[in-house]
Amino acid sequence: MTLTLDAPHPALAAWDRSGPELLVGGVPLSRLAARVGSTPFFAYDREKLTARVGRLRRFLPEAIHLHYAVKANPMPALVAHMAGLVDGFDVASAGEMATALDAGMAPQHVSFAGPGKTDAELRRAVAAGIVVEAESEGEVRRLAAQAAALGLSATVVVRVNPDFALKGSGMKMGGGPQQFGVDAERVPALLRLIGDLSLDFAGFHIFAGSQNLRADQLALAQERTVDLALRLAGQAPGPVRHLNLGGGFGIPYFPDDRPLDLGPVADSLARAALRLGERLPGARLILELGRYLVGEAGVYVCRVVDRKESRGQVFLVTDGGLHHHLAASGNFGQVIRRNYPLAIGTRMDRPAEETASVVGCLCTPLDLLGDRCALPRAEVGDLLVVFQSGAYGTTASPAAFLGHPPPAEVLV
Amino acid sequence: MTLTLDAPHPALAAWDRSGPELLVGGVPLSRLAARVGSTPFFAYDREKLTARVGRLRRFLPEAIHLHYAVKANPMPALVAHMAGLVDGFDVASAGEMATALDAGMAPQHVSFAGPGKTDAELRRAVAAGIVVEAESEGEVRRLAAQAAALGLSATVVVRVNPDFALKGSGMKMGGGPQQFGVDAERVPALLRLIGDLSLDFAGFHIFAGSQNLRADQLALAQERTVDLALRLAGQAPGPVRHLNLGGGFGIPYFPDDRPLDLGPVADSLARAALRLGERLPGARLILELGRYLVGEAGVYVCRVVDRKESRGQVFLVTDGGLHHHLAASGNFGQVIRRNYPLAIGTRMDRPAEETASVVGCLCTPLDLLGDRCALPRAEVGDLLVVFQSGAYGTTASPAAFLGHPPPAEVLV
Repeated sequence: MTLTLDAPHPALAAWDRSGPELLVGGVPLSRLAARVGSTPFFAYDREKLTARVGRLRRFLPEAIHLHYAVKANPMPALVAHMAGLVDGFDVASAGEMATALDAGMAPQHVSFAGPGKTDAELRRAVAAGIVVEAESEGEVRRLAAQAAALGLSATVVVRVNPDFALKGSGMKMGGGPQQFGVDAERVPALLRLIGDLSLDFAGFHIFAGSQNLRADQLALAQERTVDLALRLAGQAPGPVRHLNLGGGFGIPYFPDDRPLDLGPVADSLARAALRLGERLPGARLILELGRYLVGEAGVYVCRVVDRKESRGQVFLVTDGGLHHHLAASGNFGQVIRRNYPLAIGTRMDRPAEETASVVGCLCTPLDLLGDRCALPRAEVGDLLVVFQSGAYGTTASPAAFLGHPPPAEVLV
Repeated sequence: MTLTLDAPHPALAAWDRSGPELLVGGVPLSRLAARVGSTPFFAYDREKLTARVGRLRRFLPEAIHLHYAVKANPMPALVAHMAGLVDGFDVASAGEMATALDAGMAPQHVSFAGPGKTDAELRRAVAAGIVVEAESEGEVRRLAAQAAALGLSATVVVRVNPDFALKGSGMKMGGGPQQFGVDAERVPALLRLIGDLSLDFAGFHIFAGSQNLRADQLALAQERTVDLALRLAGQAPGPVRHLNLGGGFGIPYFPDDRPLDLGPVADSLARAALRLGERLPGARLILELGRYLVGEAGVYVCRVVDRKESRGQVFLVTDGGLHHHLAASGNFGQVIRRNYPLAIGTRMDRPAEETASVVGCLCTPLDLLGDRCALPRAEVGDLLVVFQSGAYGTTASPAAFLGHPPPAEVLV
């Protein structure tokens, strides 16, 4: 990767600067570091979150309800901010459920997905009154047992493993054999079981993949999702009130990634809303997004602790590393390691002056944040910034690895 | 991978069973799970740790001191057990330093390596009186400043990036440009600086790679390490009292891995001890091992929460996953995903009866613990065991990912 001020990664253009300093929420980075009191930290820009949702809403048809997938970033302050922007939350554990409810979201607009829900989690979900996404026949039976034990009704949505995949996804989560959801062809039998067990059937969640930058493929998947939903609705034990159409919108991490073109996706969602509005008039149509809403609003900031040369290569050694930001080190499910966009946040007014590798403080060669990047010359004390770090940062990293302190988090 | 009782992974042969139950420290697995009180958990077998060190000692020449690299497994009870078995600890952070000292190891036998030590960490290390491994000229200067500020002497060992690599290592940490240590050819100048700054020079740490199963390559690296140590000792500002020869002994994870042949490595260390004993008679010779001492003594145990079929494939869904054991999911720096050895710890008397994939409870396709394994037929409630899990388990995993509880740990 070459990173120069002449041809910066698109992610950098979205961030303001003042002289040598990157601004986060209007605050110069050095001052923000002093306010946080320690490095490394993750900083999330409140205004960027608001603007992101606002822009998306302008594209989306009114019938589409926007849900935030808390797993992308469960920082309580951020989730509370999102609660004022979106129409619901999706959670992947009882821990995330607690965060979602603490943030003030109404339980009926919180849904819980995940292939390995325990009896204890199902019990908590029923007691909370949230929507449970059933992933198997066994889970439906266990859910009914917990509801009976509590003397409460349980609202259930069937998570469907579609009979198609979303092409071009960073992660394929539908089509073929999957641990997620119930194969489309097995859903009718499960619907009968849900009826027999007197569970409160609410609808479906059909989801095929995530981190996708191809508008055409997303539109195609949406069309097929509508087809499938209409086919399954005919066999449901009650009206469809809740229809999660998935999400899967990606963000550009690497120099050759192009941002998702919202226009065609919004057009496709408008067509979907039209068809579904006619056939399933009582259904709340949901678009579920995580990374797309928060990923570009956050940075990871660490301090240069040492600058050294080894056999012709410059290394900037920082107090950060993969224990805080595993994905940026390229070690979290990536096949090919590529650099996240980086900058020296205290030398934003300088052009690229040298090629340097940026490493973390861990005693392992995996701890590489930037492999031979073109950067201004940085010295000990400078702040290094990793962009596109608002999603799957600290919680998706091995914080306890080698016994260093966890990163701070701040919403600015 | 095929895993049957007729041809089990060598790792399984080391574990006793009683009827259907795997025994850990003599305790049947179901009973151990009841004692721990929750699943998932990591269990480490005290006797296996003792036996491992004992066997190694029988091979090693007496002159070799054995150090444990705490980063492999910093569970306090385990570190305390290791304190009674080995001659010293190596730590990679101030956090690990605290664990090492709490376990009762004498400070002069604790050494601290890591490329990004902060001033705060250096200060703590000097105050504790442990040995600091210098990774750069800048770090040496910062160490001297902290020692002066405290009015204490600082003991320093130079970590050398050798001019050779250890071939066949899972991780290459020496040779070529590295963030670790000081290039061998730059060491003489650093030794002069250490003398000028009146730091207490103790010796060298020369380390070329880790997770190596090739005895010939380890022996070759040891020979070259001795050559390099003798060459550098001639330029030191004082006698060499501490010489860490590295470690790098691997353990077999996968079906085609063969355990390390200790004989040739021990022979090579005996030759090294002889040469060094003559030329550097006051030097304490150190072999540093982490994974090799603890990796095979631990298992990860999770419970089957759901059993489902999807398009012809059986999935065992467990309450565990990559948030506890990232390496077993193949997502921690591995290029090719391969299964760790697995068993149904509550059906050890059954032959392989079906092919099943074992997944965790996380909402991501990365959360795969076993891809199409030959296993006895397991039901909900059975305990699934991942072997070779004593090192780089819970601390090397993203515990907060998706908000599930952390695993318990028990030393049996």
